[in-house]
Amino acid sequence: MTRTTPAETPLGDSFHVFDTTLRDGAQREGITYSLADKLAVARLLDELGVGFIEGGWPGALPTDTEFFARAAAGDLQLRHAALVAFGATRRPGAKADQDPQVRALLDSAAPVVTLVAKSDVRHIERALRTDAAEAAAMVRDTVAFLVGEGRRVFLDAEHFFDGFAHDPDCALRVLTAGVEAGADVAVLCDTNGGQLPLRLADTVGEVIARTGFRVGIHCQDDTGCAVANSVAAVQAGATHVQCTANGYGERAGNADLFAVVGNLVTKLGMPVIPAHCVPELSRVSHALAEIANLAPDTHQAYVGASAFAHKAGLHASAIKVDPLLYNHIDPEVVGNDMRVLVTEMAGRASLELKGRELGIDLAGQPAALTSAVRRVKELESRGWSFEAADASLELLLRRELASAEGVPAELATVETPPFALESYRVILDHRADGVVVSEATVKVHVGDARAIATAEGNGPVHALDAALREALRPHLPWLDEVALTDYKVRILTDRPGTDAVTRVLVESTDREREWTTVGVHGNIVEASWLALCDALVHKAFRASHPVGS
Amino acid sequence: MTRTTPAETPLGDSFHVFDTTLRDGAQREGITYSLADKLAVARLLDELGVGFIEGGWPGALPTDTEFFARAAAGDLQLRHAALVAFGATRRPGAKADQDPQVRALLDSAAPVVTLVAKSDVRHIERALRTDAAEAAAMVRDTVAFLVGEGRRVFLDAEHFFDGFAHDPDCALRVLTAGVEAGADVAVLCDTNGGQLPLRLADTVGEVIARTGFRVGIHCQDDTGCAVANSVAAVQAGATHVQCTANGYGERAGNADLFAVVGNLVTKLGMPVIPAHCVPELSRVSHALAEIANLAPDTHQAYVGASAFAHKAGLHASAIKVDPLLYNHIDPEVVGNDMRVLVTEMAGRASLELKGRELGIDLAGQPAALTSAVRRVKELESRGWSFEAADASLELLLRRELASAEGVPAELATVETPPFALESYRVILDHRADGVVVSEATVKVHVGDARAIATAEGNGPVHALDAALREALRPHLPWLDEVALTDYKVRILTDRPGTDAVTRVLVESTDREREWTTVGVHGNIVEASWLALCDALVHKAFRASHPVGS
Repeated sequence: MTRTTPAETPLGDSFHVFDTTLRDGAQREGITYSLADKLAVARLLDELGVGFIEGGWPGALPTDTEFFARAAAGDLQLRHAALVAFGATRRPGAKADQDPQVRALLDSAAPVVTLVAKSDVRHIERALRTDAAEAAAMVRDTVAFLVGEGRRVFLDAEHFFDGFAHDPDCALRVLTAGVEAGADVAVLCDTNGGQLPLRLADTVGEVIARTGFRVGIHCQDDTGCAVANSVAAVQAGATHVQCTANGYGERAGNADLFAVVGNLVTKLGMPVIPAHCVPELSRVSHALAEIANLAPDTHQAYVGASAFAHKAGLHASAIKVDPLLYNHIDPEVVGNDMRVLVTEMAGRASLELKGRELGIDLAGQPAALTSAVRRVKELESRGWSFEAADASLELLLRRELASAEGVPAELATVETPPFALESYRVILDHRADGVVVSEATVKVHVGDARAIATAEGNGPVHALDAALREALRPHLPWLDEVALTDYKVRILTDRPGTDAVTRVLVESTDREREWTTVGVHGNIVEASWLALCDALVHKAFRASHPVGS
Repeated sequence: MTRTTPAETPLGDSFHVFDTTLRDGAQREGITYSLADKLAVARLLDELGVGFIEGGWPGALPTDTEFFARAAAGDLQLRHAALVAFGATRRPGAKADQDPQVRALLDSAAPVVTLVAKSDVRHIERALRTDAAEAAAMVRDTVAFLVGEGRRVFLDAEHFFDGFAHDPDCALRVLTAGVEAGADVAVLCDTNGGQLPLRLADTVGEVIARTGFRVGIHCQDDTGCAVANSVAAVQAGATHVQCTANGYGERAGNADLFAVVGNLVTKLGMPVIPAHCVPELSRVSHALAEIANLAPDTHQAYVGASAFAHKAGLHASAIKVDPLLYNHIDPEVVGNDMRVLVTEMAGRASLELKGRELGIDLAGQPAALTSAVRRVKELESRGWSFEAADASLELLLRRELASAEGVPAELATVETPPFALESYRVILDHRADGVVVSEATVKVHVGDARAIATAEGNGPVHALDAALREALRPHLPWLDEVALTDYKVRILTDRPGTDAVTRVLVESTDREREWTTVGVHGNIVEASWLALCDALVHKAFRASHPVGS
């Protein structure tokens, strides 16, 4: 992958939507992306049509190093975005081509590199313990070396706004060193997030006027103004905007990608992502929250489940007459819905759209679609969520199609489940000698046979999975191809008037594809069981109905 | 209570911090304030020194009517704020003094009234079904009547920005009718929240230039810019700013009181609340979240628990040298704290800082610090994470201090654990009739006694917790004060060369404080057990070593 510019986006390279969820977003307390998470996040961001995906800091963090290795090996095919590695300039007094940190950037094989550099003289002196001349030289040498090696380079000028206010000459000297050495964009970073929009826009305008450089913007949300600051910077002439999904980031977070893109597209008329991607904003936002294992913010601008939900009795009747009088945009533009939704999936139109994506044509089957919408809503009210569990949703839609009236036989394809549970028992022992043992016994019916098996595992779910496989293996030869690759648990406690329930997501692979299933129950083991079963049923269905057949 | 201006605030009546948490904030999905809640909210807001508290809509909502009755009866003594009732102008074609809605405002005895009026001609025609002349007359008549009855009146011009862009003459005509009839402030409302700061500031400036009126601002957060818009309006000349606590409100919410005040005080140098109230911002924000029964937003600007939390090891040593290089303000100014998150990326400096935060001085104990750093790193390499588990980290540091050489006895305080496990067993049955049952048996030693108990629960952890409590209750009387308030599970996969492990966070409370503990194990139930035990050990430690003693 050697692309250095956005592809198939309306503004091409003239405007950059630069996502740093995987690097700066991962600084948020509570986020720890696995390698599989990182690949999934990058794919979703690419589906949204962002121009650049900053994947991490190779050489500094092992998962990030491996992420770039997997990308270089062809495991990450991006349609729109160019892949970016983040790193620091050479150390004071060192040589760029001999600095292991800088070499790690080259070794990552990322076609684009963002280099962070200090531009505030106080940071240069107190944290870096050097002077402005050496700080500029560090930038110049490192940019020149990477550009010489064929990389496209952006320069992140850390603490730029404070630095510029305190000592504009030093701040501009660092920028100039980078741009003269070949950096394409001088990114002005409000690293401690203390800016307000009017002044920030003035500074951006002044920097552009004084230097003529291509300027980018990177905002943190410590004044609650990161989105506004980013948009104001664009209005002042910045043509590269750095954001994170849902504003994830250190402290109060970063500028939220979805609000920034929503504002640029719908308020300023700038087609910064492909037109067909704009209605994906809500779906991708929620899916990225699931991967981060964080509850989506229901009140998030543009994409929150409540962003277009109206409670006010005052407005209720007028809304019916003319919804656009009370909504700042048509919610469907960003894939959201005006009704109060548990998720964006519950809408009829989006379920039909999602079905098409899964290869199920619901357009001509209004009865099946109606009952599917009802079923999804009912399950979502009990804590289910299908946003990240396509395989479970596909099974649900196929079951609805199979049971609805008047559906042609070729559409009503649903696999008879390959097995049926009679009972299971799991025993966990923390013995007096300190050893912890998990043992599960499963009784299932498969075809005409009854199978019983017992197995041990690291924990209750592992033991249950092992016992189930043990029982089914003689009857279902394809079972050994299927492996669990990820397992996520979310305890849902914020549902007033109900007991906490557990939602489990299981990701499976058969080495050809990956699929995700969901289970919800008050008991974590039963929730896991439901997701495990769906995973195997989905495999059985695909084994007998290959995609494209 | 007849006060109509803010009292004991530095700017007096020349600048209004106007809180509408109890009226517009209550429109947020999920918030339902009881009468007691409303009184508590008003008292907290008054402690913060806001100038006006809009208490609700008397006549429209029974709880609001009663709230004003209680205030009039002397049950709400406000030191700083004037109490405001919200209502609509008279109906089209009616007389103001005979409109029951308008009379309810008088009957509320609130000394100040905010009247909402439509200023967008499209709303006047389509929702109100009248014309601009009658809309202006409705405003004029109602304001004049209430002013004649001795009330101070503010005018909320609904959908002002859209209306002004579409038909400025109509929008200004409504404003003018209100101000000429005696309204003190013309509040420009971005009711559907669609504005961005640069243009909004221009509009505010233009309205002031054309009318000379005293102008206020009311922003919704549909573009993610409510805080920025409010501040920009003040910079453009508005001297009255309407906010809600934590941004509560319909859809994406309103402008957050705490961020707006934080910005005005610390960024623009405007003493909009009394100086001694500024350090109350964080406490009041969290208390208001509790009353609303919503989890505080840990990433909220200024007041969130993570607003000054630093994760990056890159910065940790520099932060120690000069914290203000990395924070946009001193967190203590707004009653918040800088937190250093202990993660794999952090080292000795951040652990020392963290210890200080927990009341443990490691500065003079290099041996203990060294062994604590080693222990934390070793645990983190096995999947532990202390960034959200201060109580477990505190226990770890105290244990290291107690076992290190040469530590003074008064520092080496570590509690003998109040109980010791012999063994436990958990049985989970999914029976053939479909019922799922969890049962746990625990054998523990507590003091000289051996205790055995069995209990059922919704799931394995619930059953284990119940059995442990059952076994310990006769011996540890404080146990009933401790309740689990949250339980989070994260499966850690992708750690090369190791099996997946489960990390469990348990949040506990004894109604006086909350603390979080962590447990990690390949088995989720054992991981939960470790976190549960730490929670009780920490409680036992605090019971014998109260903070501050």
